This record gives sequence, C-alpha cells and structure tokens, in this order.
Amino acid sequence: MPDPDTSPPFTASSDRLRRARELAARAGIDALLVSPGADLHYLTGYRAAPLERLTCLVLPVEGRPFLLVPALEEPAAQTSPAAGLDLEIVSWQETQDPYALAATRLPAVATVGVDNRMWAEKAMAFQAALPGSRQVLAGPVLSELRMRKSPQEVRALRQAGGAIDRVHARMAEWLRVGRTEREIGRDIAEAILAEGHVQVDFVIVGSGPNSASPHHELSDRVVRAGDPVVVDIGGTTAAGYCSDSTRCYVLGEPPAEYRRLYEVLLRAQRAQTDAVRPGITAEELDAIGRDVITTAGYGPQFLHRTGHGIGLETHEEPYIVAGSARPLEPGMAFSVEPGIYLAGRYGARIEDIVVCTSDGGERLNRTSRDLTVLPG
Amino acid sequence: MPDPDTSPPFTASSDRLRRARELAARAGIDALLVSPGADLHYLTGYRAAPLERLTCLVLPVEGRPFLLVPALEEPAAQTSPAAGLDLEIVSWQETQDPYALAATRLPAVATVGVDNRMWAEKAMAFQAALPGSRQVLAGPVLSELRMRKSPQEVRALRQAGGAIDRVHARMAEWLRVGRTEREIGRDIAEAILAEGHVQVDFVIVGSGPNSASPHHELSDRVVRAGDPVVVDIGGTTAAGYCSDSTRCYVLGEPPAEYRRLYEVLLRAQRAQTDAVRPGITAEELDAIGRDVITTAGYGPQFLHRTGHGIGLETHEEPYIVAGSARPLEPGMAFSVEPGIYLAGRYGARIEDIVVCTSDGGERLNRTSRDLTVLPG
Repeated sequence: MPDPDTSPPFTASSDRLRRARELAARAGIDALLVSPGADLHYLTGYRAAPLERLTCLVLPVEGRPFLLVPALEEPAAQTSPAAGLDLEIVSWQETQDPYALAATRLPAVATVGVDNRMWAEKAMAFQAALPGSRQVLAGPVLSELRMRKSPQEVRALRQAGGAIDRVHARMAEWLRVGRTEREIGRDIAEAILAEGHVQVDFVIVGSGPNSASPHHELSDRVVRAGDPVVVDIGGTTAAGYCSDSTRCYVLGEPPAEYRRLYEVLLRAQRAQTDAVRPGITAEELDAIGRDVITTAGYGPQFLHRTGHGIGLETHEEPYIVAGSARPLEPGMAFSVEPGIYLAGRYGARIEDIVVCTSDGGERLNRTSRDLTVLPG
Repeated sequence: MPDPDTSPPFTASSDRLRRARELAARAGIDALLVSPGADLHYLTGYRAAPLERLTCLVLPVEGRPFLLVPALEEPAAQTSPAAGLDLEIVSWQETQDPYALAATRLPAVATVGVDNRMWAEKAMAFQAALPGSRQVLAGPVLSELRMRKSPQEVRALRQAGGAIDRVHARMAEWLRVGRTEREIGRDIAEAILAEGHVQVDFVIVGSGPNSASPHHELSDRVVRAGDPVVVDIGGTTAAGYCSDSTRCYVLGEPPAEYRRLYEVLLRAQRAQTDAVRPGITAEELDAIGRDVITTAGYGPQFLHRTGHGIGLETHEEPYIVAGSARPLEPGMAFSVEPGIYLAGRYGARIEDIVVCTSDGGERLNRTSRDLTVLPG
C-alpha cells in the first residue's frame, strides 16, 4: 500500500487548490466535488481509501473549501498533508447524511464539477442533495493541472522509470522455458516491490500466442523454446507515481516473421519517441508510428492507440490517439507503446514513458529496446 | 492479482443474469449497465480491470444481453467465463464511440440502472448517448442477489476466513517490541499471500495511541512494551472472496483501564455474534452491542456501525447499522466488529465474519477473541 509519509513531489498543494478554483471559475463551475482517488491525492495529498462512506473535498469557487470525512477516518485525515492546507476538515457521524451536510455548508451552486471517477452512487446522492444544480465532469479542469508535471513530479516519474527498468534488467532470472506465465509473474511482482515500488499495479506476461492479446495478464501456460514473450509491468512508488514499461523477450530463436515484425515495430517506436517535442499534437505522434507499421503491412494489427499519460495514475491525460489535436507541452508525460498483434500467433509491443521537455523528449525507460534473446 | 482461472463459487451465472433481469423488470428498469467491478464479476465471471476504456455488460430486460469490450481486451473477455454465457461479446475499436454503439444496439429504454460504482465519466457518457433515458442505481437490484450467498459462496467465505485466521495465529512471529508498525505490516502482508490469498486488501496495525484511530493503517511508530495493538487485516482469495478479521494484542501488561474496556467490548461482540439469526434486523443487531457498550459508559467511544456485508467485496450489503430495518436472512454474511476508541490513548475492536444460517449464525473466524498477550 502507498506510504503516506513519503511524498517528495507533493509540495504545492495550496497552490494547486487555488489554481483548481481559478480554472473551475473560468469553466463556469461553482464548486468542485472530489472523492478519493488521484484527483484528491493531487489536490490535498490525502490518500483516502475509496470506500462506501463519503470522503469528499468540496472546493467552492467562493468561500472556504472543506474536506468531508467519516468520523472514524478523521484521525487519518488530520495526520495527512490535507491538515496543513487552508481548508476545514469536517467529520460526519455514522448516522448522519454527509450529502445533506455538504449541501448546507455550500453557498448556492448552479453547476458542480464531480471528479471523473466518482462512483455513480455518490454523484446521484449529491444530485439529490443539491436538486437545483447541474453536474458536469471536473476532469477537464483537473486534468489541465495534472497533465503538466512539475519538475518534482518529473523527478518522481524518472525514479519510477528507473525502478521498473531494474526489474526488466533482471528478467533472465525468472523468464525460462518450462515455467508458467503465472510463476514468472509472481517473481516479477516480488521484484517490482523489491526494486523501489510500494505497490504492484499490473503484470502482463504474454507468451507464445498469448503475446498477441494486448491486455492478457497471466495464465498457466508453460513457456516453450522459441516463444516470443511480451512483458508489460508497472507499479507505484512511495511518492505515489506510476511506472509502466514493456519489453519483448524470446526464448531461443523466434519464428522468422517475428524478427521482421519486431524490426518494423522498433522502427515505429523509435520514430515516435524521437518525434516528441512541444507543439506536435497527440494525433500527429500517433500517426508517425502508425504510418511506419501500415507501410510495412501491419496497419490493422496495431490494435490500439499509441499511449496514455501517466503520473499519479497509470492511465491519465494526455492520451496519444487519433482524433486528439492536443499539442504536447513541456512537462507532459505519457507512454509511447505501439504494438503489432497477429491473432493466434504472436505479438509484440515496445513501451517507454516519455516526458516532453522544452525542446524534445526524455525517455524515462532506458533498458535496451532490442528484442532480448534469452536461453531457449 | 486475482486468478481468473480458479472460480469454484462461480457456478450459476446464466441464472444470475436471468434473476437480475427479472428483478430489474420488477423495479421498472429497462436495462442494466454494469461496468467492471464486483457486480460484473458476480453476473458474468469476468474480472475486467477498471480502466478508462469502456467495458460494460448491457442487460436489457427485453432482448439479448451483450458485453461491450475494447478490441484489445476482446481476447481476455473471450477466455473469461462470460464467453460461456448467453450473451454476445461486442468489441469496439480504439477510435469508435462505445456509448453510441451501446445506444444503437439497445431497444428504446426509459430507465436504465447503472452499477453503483460506475465512474461519473461513464455514467454521464451513457446519459449523453441515451438522452431520453433516466438513470437510477442498479445497486438495489443487484445487491438483492449478491447479499444472499449461495452455499458455494459461503464455502468460499469460510475458506477466506480460515486463511486470515492462519495469519492472526502467526502474529507473535512479527508483532514485537522495537519494530515499527510498517515493518510488522509488511510481514503480515506477505503472510496474507502465503496463507491462501491472491491479493492483500488492507493491513491495519494500530499500536498505542494509534489503536484509537479506527481506520489507521501503518506508520513508522515503534511498538513499545505495554502497547495495545489493533490488527485488522484482509485479503482476497483465488475464488474472489474477501476475508476481514480484527484481533487485539498487547505487548506485556496493558493499562488497567484497557483490560476493563476490552472486557466490555468482548461481552458486546459475543452478545452480537450470539444474536445472529434469521429475522433479527440489522439495527437490532447493532443495538445489542451498542447497549452493552453504552451501559458501561463507552457509548460515545463506539464511533462506527457494527459491521458490513462481505463477499466479492470487503464492504457490501447488508450494513449492520442503526436505521436499517432489514431483517437478516440465511446466506447473508457480514462483519460483527464493535470497537471502543479513547482518542489519544488507545482503542480496541474485535471482528468476526458471521454468516446467517437457517437457525442462527456461523462465525467464519475462529481464533480466540480474548486479548492476546505477547511478550512485552
């Protein structure tokens, strides 16, 4: 579980509250309602568990913000970084209605912004408690802040990248013919913790035909000689930031076409990471890799977008996808992970986290992108 | 991570779909929309990750249900138990609008039930795609099914209870004077996995004054001689079912008042577990423990409800709380966990999972409920 005491990149939260309020006002939102999750963590430093009892930051554009917490979680809230901010911690008793309590403390609000991941049951309870209001998503406001990483946040992501690189560097210890994906995955999960994460977020070991399923996780399939293996892994560091890197391995000599496919993919991924710079749009970056892969005849086998933003969550804005005209800016951090998947046969994906700098991009994953051949 | 291949209690999903549909019709709901989480797992056996791309079971009261999945997760869905049900798996491509796709395949719907934990961004996107419809929560329908456990589910919960009991039984290995809560917690987390869980859900080690904070997790506080320590731990088994049990320990001789407080608490918790039987209401059960504690003068220090249902989630219906006139029925499983907390000093909580049987209750946690004295 994340360590709430170690938050080096968390240094500017009163400033974050102020900026969130300004952006909300500009978007015509009268109050933001932020339940447990990455948005609440970002704004207040409080890492509350997402439970059925309401915990919620109420951030009105006018008036003092407050953090509603169940009475039994008040001690936890009081020892969190939220207690150091200019907000009131308001606890509610087990048989009180926290939504009604929020409503009585709010000024008149016409439009409220709920965090994108607020549970439907909470959003509906707020709607009932604030019957004259209209709900919109807070995401467009909050992602404007979260997707532009501060130098401290970039440092935290760089640290996370180094941690997951150390796991990939040790892959030969676990990835061997005769073991199941699940056995290999368990060892990798332990190593994710041992190498500088406090939480394992996901472990994908797709061997042989399973490598053609982009979101395959682990199965009892035994890895065989000649198998290509896609290993896509990530965790969360003590600072709360996520890692995510994919590398491909082969146990002995792969099928000839696999080498060809891999060369195409590597060219695409290199072209994309080299193209990162301020001003290029998400869809342009996506197209650069897609064009390489399409020209080589694998276009329909590149099943997914190029990548996703990363920070306090593994998947967040900006998404690197066709249709997004968003220009990249310094401080944006995202994955570049093209893939080619031949259903029922094999597949490959290469993934680095890249942060846009003032004049280009910095890859936060530095292990070799070549196809790594392990003993077959 | 949960093991998708081992699902012994999952035996009746087509039946579950049928019953969900019937209950929805009776509640005036035209279609249920169920995103990843315990509801989807319960209905289809598919344990999809809760990601930003839409995965959703669409269960119309009339017509064939379908499971919308992102193209890159189709292979995972096709190998899940959902593929064996009477529903169609419909995949959507990365640049398609899955909400519009759902809308075109649905018959006219006036009222849709969204699962209680659907993210606001998804619920709002469904609202935009189905502009004539009204959203209500699916929880009241789905919890009617989920809160009444089948014999297989009770077996799975019994197995989970035994697994967490084995961890409590080993507590003396880790809980020692001079170690920090965090060090102890890490050892407990490893043991939770070693003793029959595939996932650690939470580890609370509240020592000394931290024992007075019901939702304290782990800190760097060093455990001292004479400290009372509340240990509340739980995990998820391969079958997907959760464990949750709290025991109190003391390192040497506790303060005299702590013994008195603990005796009161133990009487309350015993009275409550002994009172479980069909027909007693949730609020009556809550009152039984509260009365014992109030009579002893600690009423205001019992900060929370008596308990929560448990199954595929640690917290689910039925909640054992004042104001709930729900009568217990055979197959309902829930925690009985009264607590007494003296802020800044110390606290105690005793928690068993109890399942209501045809004529009483079965405690699924069987380690001693006495205050366990370890070397001080």
